[in-house]
Amino acid sequence: MNYKNFPMVPRVIFGRGSFNQLSEILAPKRLNSHSPFIYLIDDVFKNNAWLTSRIYLAYDDRIIFISAKEEPKTSQVDELVEDIILSSKERPSGIIGIGGGTLLDLAKAVSIMITNEGEAKDYQGWDLVKNPAIYHVGIPTISGTGAEVSRTTVLTGPTRKLGINSDYTPFDQVFLDPELTKGVPNNQWFYTGMDCFIHCVESLNGTYLNAFSQSYGNMAYELCKDIFLDNNLTEEDTQDKLMMASWHGGMSIAYSQVGVAHAMSYGLAYVLGVKHGIGNCIVFDHLEEFYPEGVKLFKIMKTTHNITLPQGLCAGLSDKELDLMVNIALGLEPLWENAIGKHWKKTITKEKLKALYKKM
Amino acid sequence: MNYKNFPMVPRVIFGRGSFNQLSEILAPKRLNSHSPFIYLIDDVFKNNAWLTSRIYLAYDDRIIFISAKEEPKTSQVDELVEDIILSSKERPSGIIGIGGGTLLDLAKAVSIMITNEGEAKDYQGWDLVKNPAIYHVGIPTISGTGAEVSRTTVLTGPTRKLGINSDYTPFDQVFLDPELTKGVPNNQWFYTGMDCFIHCVESLNGTYLNAFSQSYGNMAYELCKDIFLDNNLTEEDTQDKLMMASWHGGMSIAYSQVGVAHAMSYGLAYVLGVKHGIGNCIVFDHLEEFYPEGVKLFKIMKTTHNITLPQGLCAGLSDKELDLMVNIALGLEPLWENAIGKHWKKTITKEKLKALYKKM
Repeated sequence: MNYKNFPMVPRVIFGRGSFNQLSEILAPKRLNSHSPFIYLIDDVFKNNAWLTSRIYLAYDDRIIFISAKEEPKTSQVDELVEDIILSSKERPSGIIGIGGGTLLDLAKAVSIMITNEGEAKDYQGWDLVKNPAIYHVGIPTISGTGAEVSRTTVLTGPTRKLGINSDYTPFDQVFLDPELTKGVPNNQWFYTGMDCFIHCVESLNGTYLNAFSQSYGNMAYELCKDIFLDNNLTEEDTQDKLMMASWHGGMSIAYSQVGVAHAMSYGLAYVLGVKHGIGNCIVFDHLEEFYPEGVKLFKIMKTTHNITLPQGLCAGLSDKELDLMVNIALGLEPLWENAIGKHWKKTITKEKLKALYKKM
Repeated sequence: MNYKNFPMVPRVIFGRGSFNQLSEILAPKRLNSHSPFIYLIDDVFKNNAWLTSRIYLAYDDRIIFISAKEEPKTSQVDELVEDIILSSKERPSGIIGIGGGTLLDLAKAVSIMITNEGEAKDYQGWDLVKNPAIYHVGIPTISGTGAEVSRTTVLTGPTRKLGINSDYTPFDQVFLDPELTKGVPNNQWFYTGMDCFIHCVESLNGTYLNAFSQSYGNMAYELCKDIFLDNNLTEEDTQDKLMMASWHGGMSIAYSQVGVAHAMSYGLAYVLGVKHGIGNCIVFDHLEEFYPEGVKLFKIMKTTHNITLPQGLCAGLSDKELDLMVNIALGLEPLWENAIGKHWKKTITKEKLKALYKKM
């Protein structure tokens, strides 16, 4: 038996307002005056002085605002890397991602591709990255994805949606400042929070589960119940606890794996461009067969927070599109093996998945 | 408000038998054939081929067996460092600590003192270490202390028992192999496990508590209740879960602080040489006033596991010895501030502590 030697984020700062310490923490990491810090920031923060005024740009430091409306793409990473290399006198001192899962994943992927040849798509998979990434920092402004703690950066490439999973992927530094998550629209807050809840359900019900993953998964699961079911926390408490739930949920899947919801949601994302959080919710809503208890709680949470999920997304799809969706989902073998067990191919057939997709 | 930028152990491997991967994980860390790996191992493992046969000594690698009967001392660290420097052709490639809190703390302290001038006692305190330690690895063989994850190494010096708290203290690599904890005698298992339970109580009831510490503390607290109260787990499950409880309990106090039990137990250790685990238990048994719920549970756990604590330890002490004990305890100001609040000096007097000690 060969166990994974799991890389953890080596530095984390937690606290409301800890974002104020950004420049102080970055300063010793500046290589020289020709090596800029590059900030990749969700463009919802453009003109938001409350956030941007706390970023001190020196020398050739740059902010690049990026829309998170679409899932991050390998081609987008390649373009960003080219732009950054062409516009910097020397290799940057670091990449700082500020935003949700999309921005965090872009920051991770860009920091890897600055030191590794070829295109981002070449590294989709497990342990294909050869050289250490440059210093990279993750600052979540919405909670749930676990991207702040994971060893993957999930990208849509020309032939598939798949993560760059490597020991060089995790951030060197994370800021957990729950204050940064204020003002997230209710729907998005719910969808992203459910990403965390679903991580826990998939990890805790998976065949890969061990005591390490279980302890993190239980903790995040309980926090999600406090937040989304009991619903009697203050706004600040909700922000604080959801940020921790995301962190622990991410740790839980790190040493285990996700499952059916993620596999099928990847298919939905690839063919229809459905974003990860809402995609997971749309899929999970139909997975009673695999996760009866989790889906029951999910439906209560949905009602509690007045969430109406889109229906009939796959109704108008051609057979070819449905086949592609099914193939993308089935290609994620470790997820199915975790969810169902070694002999998953006996029960998880193309027909079964197609029928499930047709309900969505 | 200035938040701590907390250093986490950057690599962790979890699993029963993960210790088998030791040589594979160490190999790339060898600097050259003149730079040995030095293994500090609890001498209960001397002649234990089940453990030692899995350690591959190459070149000038050495095993140093050390008794954990006494608390680790600053003078002991200085002697070890001198011995290692004199007997190695070049600076060692790494220090590997295998054992309980004593061995783990010795490994951390030795790895620091190899690169920092002077004596270990000079660094007792907070953030006094100037140079990064050499590569160091922690492999717990008993669970509860949290030493595997903390940023301190607690040593008894000429004038006090106090940790070397620094960003360079945490291990670079930890092995969590619950199988290594088999065969620990029942008493020691209980005392060390209670160190974890007490960490949680002190953290969760402290004024320094935040959502980060709380989530780790709750998780470890629940695990301790599963293990020591409900008592219906298999032996393997108990080992796995207690190892995770220790880890999470250590994380909980990392961003918070311990409290009354630890402060008073340090006094007991300094004057009477009482070991940390049992010392905490002896003290905690008398702390209903501070931790009513925790102490109530502790007493039930004690009964469940047929533990009889020593009584009357302080009965024969002179006033001078009691004063010293009280002064050691009161000197740990952050612990009291966490436990009682900013104005702790109003209620925590020398007389009060002396009266408490006299009960023990």
